[in-house]
Amino acid sequence: MSFKVPEDIAIGLEEELGRKFLERIWGKSPTYTCVIGNTETAKIPGLSAAGANPEACDFTPAADMELLFFGKCKCMDGVPVTPDGIPTPGIVTMSAIKLTSMPIFVVNGGLKVRPHVPFFDVDGSPGEDIRTGRAVKDPEKCFDRAVLAGRNLAKISDYLVVAESIPGGTTTALGVLTALGYDATGKVSSTLPANPHSLKNQIVQEGLKANGVGKDGFRNDPMAAIEAVGDPMMAPAAGLVAGAAESVPVIMAGGTQMAAVLAVVKGMDSSALKNVALGTTRWIMKDNTSDLRDLVSQIGKVPILSANLNFSTSRYDGLKIYETGLVKEGVGAGGSTIAAIAQSEGRITARTMLDEIEKNYARLVSRR
Amino acid sequence: MSFKVPEDIAIGLEEELGRKFLERIWGKSPTYTCVIGNTETAKIPGLSAAGANPEACDFTPAADMELLFFGKCKCMDGVPVTPDGIPTPGIVTMSAIKLTSMPIFVVNGGLKVRPHVPFFDVDGSPGEDIRTGRAVKDPEKCFDRAVLAGRNLAKISDYLVVAESIPGGTTTALGVLTALGYDATGKVSSTLPANPHSLKNQIVQEGLKANGVGKDGFRNDPMAAIEAVGDPMMAPAAGLVAGAAESVPVIMAGGTQMAAVLAVVKGMDSSALKNVALGTTRWIMKDNTSDLRDLVSQIGKVPILSANLNFSTSRYDGLKIYETGLVKEGVGAGGSTIAAIAQSEGRITARTMLDEIEKNYARLVSRR
Repeated sequence: MSFKVPEDIAIGLEEELGRKFLERIWGKSPTYTCVIGNTETAKIPGLSAAGANPEACDFTPAADMELLFFGKCKCMDGVPVTPDGIPTPGIVTMSAIKLTSMPIFVVNGGLKVRPHVPFFDVDGSPGEDIRTGRAVKDPEKCFDRAVLAGRNLAKISDYLVVAESIPGGTTTALGVLTALGYDATGKVSSTLPANPHSLKNQIVQEGLKANGVGKDGFRNDPMAAIEAVGDPMMAPAAGLVAGAAESVPVIMAGGTQMAAVLAVVKGMDSSALKNVALGTTRWIMKDNTSDLRDLVSQIGKVPILSANLNFSTSRYDGLKIYETGLVKEGVGAGGSTIAAIAQSEGRITARTMLDEIEKNYARLVSRR
Repeated sequence: MSFKVPEDIAIGLEEELGRKFLERIWGKSPTYTCVIGNTETAKIPGLSAAGANPEACDFTPAADMELLFFGKCKCMDGVPVTPDGIPTPGIVTMSAIKLTSMPIFVVNGGLKVRPHVPFFDVDGSPGEDIRTGRAVKDPEKCFDRAVLAGRNLAKISDYLVVAESIPGGTTTALGVLTALGYDATGKVSSTLPANPHSLKNQIVQEGLKANGVGKDGFRNDPMAAIEAVGDPMMAPAAGLVAGAAESVPVIMAGGTQMAAVLAVVKGMDSSALKNVALGTTRWIMKDNTSDLRDLVSQIGKVPILSANLNFSTSRYDGLKIYETGLVKEGVGAGGSTIAAIAQSEGRITARTMLDEIEKNYARLVSRR
């Protein structure tokens, strides 16, 4: 009897590989990891939702991790929200974690604000504005250490979920994808109502120019690309994936930012690609201001799985607003939902996830 | 058929509990963890072997961890040695890890020199000289974070080995045991040929006096005891143990320093004691300048297991010297050997361990 893909998971690319990947993780216990960091790029006005409140965005990744460990944030009141008041997708991830008890491991890629939780240190530093062309300090060191962490976690894990939380990360994703020679213009996503593609492009070009390496100079050097126009999440995330994928499957949980990490993984160790899938949300897949499918297909034969999260029937306006597509992904919301569905062999559904999310949302947000 | 204790593991206390503990971990896969830190206490002249070369001792814990990950040290040439030229017991641990492939997780309790490996950060700081009576900053924060790390590791581990590497740690062990009301005078071990018990005692008394809390003031407050006269390894090690022991067995891998950690665990969460065993070496058990058996029996009904490592037949003088009892334990040498024997269901023996240790010793040390 062949494996049947559950209705709450869609395969957006590489149908057959996606089905096989799901079959391999079906009933298995995921180990959730999240690489967090900060980049000054997030504070460039008009570039991202984070830019509207530059100081607050330094706290977002730390607050997201506290939400996962404690069910509430410690370094700030309430939870991270966009300027439009949309709560962090960390609420989705937290709900998947609560339903499954999956273990949580945080990696500090380079933070300005550190969470009140234990985390792996890989000797990373916060990222600079990519317009400097010197965005990240020594990404290769962080990559190498994360490879070791990934290998060690893989020894005791059925498989890994590797997620991220870093405000401003879609612009750095455009930067690294562009530096590595992919056609990413107009294809990375945004949390702003109007995706500012031309501004992002201009900033990336400014960074590449400031770095001084000529066109094609980064093609075979993902670490140099990150150093120039990337962010401090990327190298550790790629290292975790590469280290773990030597022996177990890995869900790379994210949207277009994870496509950039995938491009880095491919450049560092292309054999890892056979053990990975992108895991994301329906909101990313239906976004017509970005194109994850195109980005991933440029990189390699890697399936995209998406969780059919649908908040249109939610009784909370703050969740319904996810259907506008402003916030689409983050903190591994999609990948952790897929992991929860797979671990429970389908007993957890998009509907039971929404119930749990509403419960947590009500507790965390509505009473503020 | 009742479980037979292998001949290379001796039970030094609580025979029946020890047998049951061994039976529970037999054939299971250990997760090795090590909490490392530095304390200025190590630099007090005459107190410890580390004190003979104060700057070098800052590097020891970091170098030990690099040895485990890479089979060689990165932050120094060669390997850590005592002033007498005895190589670190990290070589024993490294050999156990190589034979079993057990995963390694390092916790930075508070370091002056950070290893070139990934490690858990629990927001610890290096420790001060305990004569100040203000030895460790906010140990409770580190304890709490380590509890979370221990719980998460336990979710994906059959059981944990919790080891330590911190020069000067036997004096701080005396400090905390004394502060908690145990009779530890003359009972902690040393790497000096003549265990300087009276100097250690004098230093502990000086610290307790400087702290200003009266006699018995620490009895029910292990965190205050560490803050006054402990070291930065203790709270995270106790936290890891307490967090993991909620759900899985834990080998507390060490000598009299681990007795101090055990006292801390008992004071924070006495229910954890039912899931732990001390795991150490034959050299600790036969040392007549210290008394681990007495210390542990004062604390609670916890078995002591010891690995019958015997280097008297080694072809290397640098290993034979272990039989003089100068270096007896550290980096979880005994506990990781026990874990290797148990994982292999006895196929790994003290003899096969020595073969592996000699191989590594020859590569690392003899050619220097």
